[in-house]
Amino acid sequence: MSIRVAVDAMGGDQAPAVVVEGAVRAARRAEGSFELLLFGPEALLQEELARNEATGAIRIVDAPEVIGMAEAPAAAVKTKQASSIHRGLGAHRQGLADAFVSAGNTGAVMAASLFILGRLPGVARPTLVGYYPSADSFSLVVDVGSNIDCKPEHLVQFAQMGALYAERILKRPDPTVGLLNIGEEPGKGNEQTKAAYTLLAQTPGLHFRGNIEGRDLLHHAADVIICDGFVGNVILKVGESVATALPVMLKREMARQGRTPAEQAVIEEVFRGVLRAFNYEEYGGAPLLGVDGHVIIGHGSSSARAVERMIEVAVEVARQDVARSIASALNA
Amino acid sequence: MSIRVAVDAMGGDQAPAVVVEGAVRAARRAEGSFELLLFGPEALLQEELARNEATGAIRIVDAPEVIGMAEAPAAAVKTKQASSIHRGLGAHRQGLADAFVSAGNTGAVMAASLFILGRLPGVARPTLVGYYPSADSFSLVVDVGSNIDCKPEHLVQFAQMGALYAERILKRPDPTVGLLNIGEEPGKGNEQTKAAYTLLAQTPGLHFRGNIEGRDLLHHAADVIICDGFVGNVILKVGESVATALPVMLKREMARQGRTPAEQAVIEEVFRGVLRAFNYEEYGGAPLLGVDGHVIIGHGSSSARAVERMIEVAVEVARQDVARSIASALNA
Repeated sequence: MSIRVAVDAMGGDQAPAVVVEGAVRAARRAEGSFELLLFGPEALLQEELARNEATGAIRIVDAPEVIGMAEAPAAAVKTKQASSIHRGLGAHRQGLADAFVSAGNTGAVMAASLFILGRLPGVARPTLVGYYPSADSFSLVVDVGSNIDCKPEHLVQFAQMGALYAERILKRPDPTVGLLNIGEEPGKGNEQTKAAYTLLAQTPGLHFRGNIEGRDLLHHAADVIICDGFVGNVILKVGESVATALPVMLKREMARQGRTPAEQAVIEEVFRGVLRAFNYEEYGGAPLLGVDGHVIIGHGSSSARAVERMIEVAVEVARQDVARSIASALNA
Repeated sequence: MSIRVAVDAMGGDQAPAVVVEGAVRAARRAEGSFELLLFGPEALLQEELARNEATGAIRIVDAPEVIGMAEAPAAAVKTKQASSIHRGLGAHRQGLADAFVSAGNTGAVMAASLFILGRLPGVARPTLVGYYPSADSFSLVVDVGSNIDCKPEHLVQFAQMGALYAERILKRPDPTVGLLNIGEEPGKGNEQTKAAYTLLAQTPGLHFRGNIEGRDLLHHAADVIICDGFVGNVILKVGESVATALPVMLKREMARQGRTPAEQAVIEEVFRGVLRAFNYEEYGGAPLLGVDGHVIIGHGSSSARAVERMIEVAVEVARQDVARSIASALNA
């Protein structure tokens, strides 16, 4: 049976236009290998589909309510039960879809996922994964903000879930795990990382590389980098800001050096290529691991291309049945 | 009376050669406005001074022991009392020097400073300050690793000491203070930052801007950015690694785009200019604030130019008597 992905058509800063465009692009490339369910106000989505001259396997499911990007998650999740987030996750829960994708309000998607799908047995804290660029490739960062105050044993589960995702979805055999810390030696760090180091070193099945430092992040010190959600959120956003701050610094430096317009054009083209690694779009959304289902959450400013990638990632996650693999691994 | 600075001639990866070279350069530019005391093995330093054709007000003080860059700080500080770090700080303590400068083992310098100089009255935790580049300028980050597990009230003192340093030494009138957090709104964050926000907002004399996020760091969201030493150490090292990782990414991108050698030369020159902001050398060492004295700690890989800048910063810190100002501000 073909994979079906539920898409929150109302999620993201430019929803539904950009989401529908991305969904149509994904469906065209799918060639029947998966189907899409678009959740949102029916009339609005029909218009968007027509505007995109949609072909392929896309079906609209009406969800008249919308949870705004800036709404307080807890309240929105309680009151707006006819939202695209609720109905999309509800369809996933009922087995009518195999994954759920949203570029909407991250907090609301996480809260609704936990509420509607629940945790996998044995998982203490579901976790949102992020991507960190490196010279060669990219690393996963777990957690990037879904768990702010963490216990050491939570970090161990983040490592197990992140490693499984790296192996199954990113196709990295024997993925390495590093603990983000403030020194390389065991025994360095705060109370949390010192205790987590000991536990990680004892966990069977992990390729634990030990501590890695901030300076190693961009140099791909490990496939999976473990930290609490506070630190992960801060470093993820620092990484993103490299792509916004460096062009400003570049403009100033080119003016200072008196570069010609022709030189500037060449320099900017090369620079754009370099900064592409810092662009979330290439990665196609972050998985929420540890819930009883398959949820991919995108950046609020996701483009159509990013939505297309998110859908393709969701298809692969569903096909590999990552949730079941996590449950097996954590209850082994 | 002219300012005297005690210099740890044996501190840093390339000590004493680079340190003595930097000291000689600083002394030449000083034109009698300050004097230097170089601490280290006497014969060795005499050779280095001769090699640099030293002129100006430099005096050698014998310190036969050396604390290595990789030595465990606690043990080294206890046992090597004839080290350049101990004797330099001892001279400062006795009033024979007005400041102490070292590019040596950071942990050992901090521990010895605390042991020999002691804390200023009212200071709970002395703190090591760092610099963060931004498109326009740079921000101070307090703390960058000297205090790993912090209480909210420690963060408030970091803010007070950092703001005072920004105002007196960096000459920034009414320096703004931001709390590094994972959301802009009050009420966001972990237990520590939530409590610190409340305290910071109530502290008179601070220009508190509220929460700032990782993405704001490179955009100069505040003159002084407050965080615990774990987070500060991680982000400082991420920032440093931009300068090491981006050239690798650049080379690959230039090859991918098939750039000519002439184009590559132009691009690399502009790039070097941009990455200079991520180079610690420009900032001249970080102050250790809250001890009863004036201590400037440099990066282990400090160049002669960096040592020269550190000495100039130390002179200014001593001239402004920053330690006394901190004691007044915290006991007001």
